[in-house]
Amino acid sequence: MKKPDWVIEKERGKRAAAAETVWLFGLHAVRDALLNPNRQRLRLVLTKNAADRLGDAMAAGGLEPEIVDPRRFDVPIDEGSVHQGAALEVKPLAWGSMEDVCLTGSGAPLVVLLDRVTDPHNVGAVLRSAEVFGARAVVAPLRHSAPETGALAKTASGALERQPYLRVTNLAEAMEQLRRMGFTLLGLDGDAPQTLAGALAGLGTRPLGLVLGAEGPGLRDKTKATCDALAKIPFARGFGSLNVSNAAAVALYAAAQRAD
Amino acid sequence: MKKPDWVIEKERGKRAAAAETVWLFGLHAVRDALLNPNRQRLRLVLTKNAADRLGDAMAAGGLEPEIVDPRRFDVPIDEGSVHQGAALEVKPLAWGSMEDVCLTGSGAPLVVLLDRVTDPHNVGAVLRSAEVFGARAVVAPLRHSAPETGALAKTASGALERQPYLRVTNLAEAMEQLRRMGFTLLGLDGDAPQTLAGALAGLGTRPLGLVLGAEGPGLRDKTKATCDALAKIPFARGFGSLNVSNAAAVALYAAAQRAD
Repeated sequence: MKKPDWVIEKERGKRAAAAETVWLFGLHAVRDALLNPNRQRLRLVLTKNAADRLGDAMAAGGLEPEIVDPRRFDVPIDEGSVHQGAALEVKPLAWGSMEDVCLTGSGAPLVVLLDRVTDPHNVGAVLRSAEVFGARAVVAPLRHSAPETGALAKTASGALERQPYLRVTNLAEAMEQLRRMGFTLLGLDGDAPQTLAGALAGLGTRPLGLVLGAEGPGLRDKTKATCDALAKIPFARGFGSLNVSNAAAVALYAAAQRAD
Repeated sequence: MKKPDWVIEKERGKRAAAAETVWLFGLHAVRDALLNPNRQRLRLVLTKNAADRLGDAMAAGGLEPEIVDPRRFDVPIDEGSVHQGAALEVKPLAWGSMEDVCLTGSGAPLVVLLDRVTDPHNVGAVLRSAEVFGARAVVAPLRHSAPETGALAKTASGALERQPYLRVTNLAEAMEQLRRMGFTLLGLDGDAPQTLAGALAGLGTRPLGLVLGAEGPGLRDKTKATCDALAKIPFARGFGSLNVSNAAAVALYAAAQRAD
């Protein structure tokens, strides 16, 4: 029997994910990844100067560095970025299944879902806020989302090593899965009839998934239709809208307040 | 009689501000500034292609463009930035006095004060959130703050043309001035004994100034001492802290909710 298309697609995605490696760069991001026991490390490229500054982390990381001349530092890092003489090739972190990650932990379960947010700085900032407000995971589709790059790691300011960032084949499917796990899915949408505070007031401390779209396009129709409810962050003036990471921070704060 | 040092310093600052011009760049930022009747425009440099795309705004701006070859586009824009063939030299916007700006408007008066936030992307994002939540001004010291650059304008996504960004000689002095105008000054500080929600609950809809410091150093001692109260945004985990623009968005949201 021929496998259905979605199975083939899923397997292809998994193989691609397994083969994927990421170059992290900058002293801070490289140090965090060297000190993370869950991080699979492949190659460490350092200038002499950077090696001196990372001595302690290098010992913990257990990976022999390749010391290179600063003028020959040809590692594939994001354009326009500052590597500070330090780059580390790693595998994306394996966070385990969505059940394991989203059902484990203390406090009212909270998850963020990002619908095609492609800017690594925005996703990095969302990971950072998600960690601060105790979200269990940030979930995003494998395609059309910012991958775990060095630029993302840098904006996340260490949170990439600690805050689960789950990439799924299909966002709507992941939403259905969360719903079966007991999550209520609340989409952020500027045209929604009710406010965020109003929507949250009715939810108590039930498991909650906050769904945010990219600036401009917002949530896709399919994503909106898969939400249990839509809510808006009220704003005072007609023009202007929040940057997606700022909208996520506001929604996470409001959701975390529920538990008080 | 010799002028005191602080008077000389103040006059020097005013002269520098008057002489200051800014290059805005990118189609979006240039279009916004061309359409803003309050914006004093000095030079418009465009590629043929950009001129075609800005036709309508150019007519409104009333400034003859200098059409240049894309390979000779040598305008002083921020490094690593994309100009899209459009650059506009402008004067910083003259918003008027702090009294005029902060005492005028509808709803509970709200102002944001930034203590040495130097990253233009962060200040741009704060301007954008300030506009969304109806803050009357973002106030920052002339020195050690991100100036009105093209990078700031780009992150502000149009808000720079509409949201007052007041640069003052001395932040503590501006805070005292706001206090005399009836504002309560609430500083955001991770070590504060009370939460943001707790602090706001006692304030009703009195005029409010939210004071935020740069990531890392936070509020300076002098700034803290000039606040009426300090409050923290509670967070679930030990490590991690919010990006300053995300902290501002959360505080603005919480403050805007007061009026509900």
